[in-house]
Amino acid sequence: MELESIYTNDRAVGQERSLGVDWVVDARLCSAPALRDVATIDGVIAQILSLAALHPVSAPIVHRLPEGGIAMIVLLAEAHLAIHTFPDRGAATLNLYSAEWRTDFDWRSALGAWLGARDVHVRRILRGEFS
Amino acid sequence: MELESIYTNDRAVGQERSLGVDWVVDARLCSAPALRDVATIDGVIAQILSLAALHPVSAPIVHRLPEGGIAMIVLLAEAHLAIHTFPDRGAATLNLYSAEWRTDFDWRSALGAWLGARDVHVRRILRGEFS
Repeated sequence: MELESIYTNDRAVGQERSLGVDWVVDARLCSAPALRDVATIDGVIAQILSLAALHPVSAPIVHRLPEGGIAMIVLLAEAHLAIHTFPDRGAATLNLYSAEWRTDFDWRSALGAWLGARDVHVRRILRGEFS
Repeated sequence: MELESIYTNDRAVGQERSLGVDWVVDARLCSAPALRDVATIDGVIAQILSLAALHPVSAPIVHRLPEGGIAMIVLLAEAHLAIHTFPDRGAATLNLYSAEWRTDFDWRSALGAWLGARDVHVRRILRGEFS
């Protein structure tokens, strides 16, 4: 209910000025093995895209760091999704940007289930609108 | 000078909790032809990486939208850079994330020079620190 009213307000502010929404998500107290596992991180990407009903325009790019961290990014037509993991610190950072409004979802539950994250901080940033 | 003191403060807050910095940049009143030109946008990406002393781990992914907009993203070891352009609105959104501290640069002058942007809004978001 609360989320719905936020969306209604945003539209009222003037959708024509909007350049979309960024979700800036920091996850801590995650499972280190999950953060080191490319298949797990690839699954996180796939599940977020599915939940947000977003369609990639190419396969994800993956980079594995010497100390076990993973960086993965995927491009969409007017959006992108990126994750960077830090297994030695039990942390991951995620960015989801979409130029179009999308229904938000429960990042805390999702990252709890997928990465074992017990501390998830979500910031939702309106692009193109500065108040 | 002001930027330097911000950096000093961040470190004092506790660098160990930091998961890096996001620059969330919205540019308006840009040159529409520049926003439609893949070579120009590719040059913007290259120049930002050079200014920020960041090194990509793979070539940028590029996607051209039917109405002329361009989406481009590049992955770095512990960072990423993305740009989406909206020529019919004279706008572009940029995201630069780096897990390590980097010297900031003058986004307004740079995007003014490269894209003709006359309205640039920069937000600098500390990852992993919420006060």
